[in-house]
Amino acid sequence: MTTNHGGIPDDAELMAATSDLAAALRELVEASVRTTTGAAQVRGAAELVRAATARISGSRRPLTRLPALDDPATGRRVFNPVIGVGSAIASPLRERADGDGVVAEGSFNAAYEGPPTFLHGGMSALVMDQLLGDAAWTVAAGGMTVHLELDYRRPVPLETPLVMRAGVTEATERKTVTAGTIALASAPHEPCVRAGAVFVRPRPEQAQDYFGTLTDASGRRPTGAADAAFARD
Amino acid sequence: MTTNHGGIPDDAELMAATSDLAAALRELVEASVRTTTGAAQVRGAAELVRAATARISGSRRPLTRLPALDDPATGRRVFNPVIGVGSAIASPLRERADGDGVVAEGSFNAAYEGPPTFLHGGMSALVMDQLLGDAAWTVAAGGMTVHLELDYRRPVPLETPLVMRAGVTEATERKTVTAGTIALASAPHEPCVRAGAVFVRPRPEQAQDYFGTLTDASGRRPTGAADAAFARD
Repeated sequence: MTTNHGGIPDDAELMAATSDLAAALRELVEASVRTTTGAAQVRGAAELVRAATARISGSRRPLTRLPALDDPATGRRVFNPVIGVGSAIASPLRERADGDGVVAEGSFNAAYEGPPTFLHGGMSALVMDQLLGDAAWTVAAGGMTVHLELDYRRPVPLETPLVMRAGVTEATERKTVTAGTIALASAPHEPCVRAGAVFVRPRPEQAQDYFGTLTDASGRRPTGAADAAFARD
Repeated sequence: MTTNHGGIPDDAELMAATSDLAAALRELVEASVRTTTGAAQVRGAAELVRAATARISGSRRPLTRLPALDDPATGRRVFNPVIGVGSAIASPLRERADGDGVVAEGSFNAAYEGPPTFLHGGMSALVMDQLLGDAAWTVAAGGMTVHLELDYRRPVPLETPLVMRAGVTEATERKTVTAGTIALASAPHEPCVRAGAVFVRPRPEQAQDYFGTLTDASGRRPTGAADAAFARD
């Protein structure tokens, strides 16, 4: 953990640095698929990347130990590969609660390409699984995906502002049914992709089976109540 | 483009450098979600990453110009975010043709996490969309995803060898129906995830609409025959 300078909480400092590294990495990932500078420059970049890896490889957490910045109580997962501010894989989306669910805005660069100039079809699925799950947590009991389904009407263009919506259509104590869309921000009522998913909250014995070995960042065991909050994806 | 030393083709040199950068980036992306070294080291890594980006940002291709290493004739897409050797987002999977489809082996690290210690549910969808599409291209007419559906039986653990299978169940001239599974390599007959997808090859006028502005790496227009081969994701 870092030293606390000038009254800035350690967590805020680590969060800022973590977000900064992810932002820098996203730029590099995109540059790596767009560059035409040639092999020597690409080799030089790889060398700098390996130096960066060495810089942060002094100590690492076990897979079963949560990151210091995660907060199971609020559901904050800093390295989530769709909406985590610390994830280099996540395309930055602005997500907010909206009515019976969530809405997200943003665009995808060439690193997320399927057919040339269009978003990979599986990326639509990845993003919608996350947003539908977030809707299920925001409005209902949440849980883990048991079914996901997508219909693709027209390809989603890269580098184009999009609006993604996800809402809850039916909810019981443990099961939540959701539906959502991906559309161009310029044509929000003509979805390119329609998605639906069903989420089920694990029973206590399942949660124990899946998450029973987890510890918080200090290595202590989280409470049973917190475990249930982990069952999201 | 790089100079050609000692008879090594330019393409081979660029391919090796591109694969090397992606491999280095994947290590850094994983390190960035596992590190516990603190804010100062993370800031230092971000600085090196920005230097790497500067190194390869001297020139970049337009989005409508294919990468030099792509080959529409064989379907090689170097930066594909699931199986591209040049993609930092892609978890390295070993994929091969197998019977009526394809099989892929590999594992996922913490950068692909959904619920703690498990693969993000949407990542299963991303990977299966790719593999089902590859099966459709290997065995039948291929095309773009029009429907994708997944049933999740049990969570897929991270850092665990997996086997992913995708095959064609029904094919007509323009439409291919596929099905596949994700299972632990240690229990290949008990799928964690079952997936199915339908792919449709665009009609010539659609292909023209979607890909009509594409050029090859030199800025020349590819042939009409090549355009159809782009309609994969």
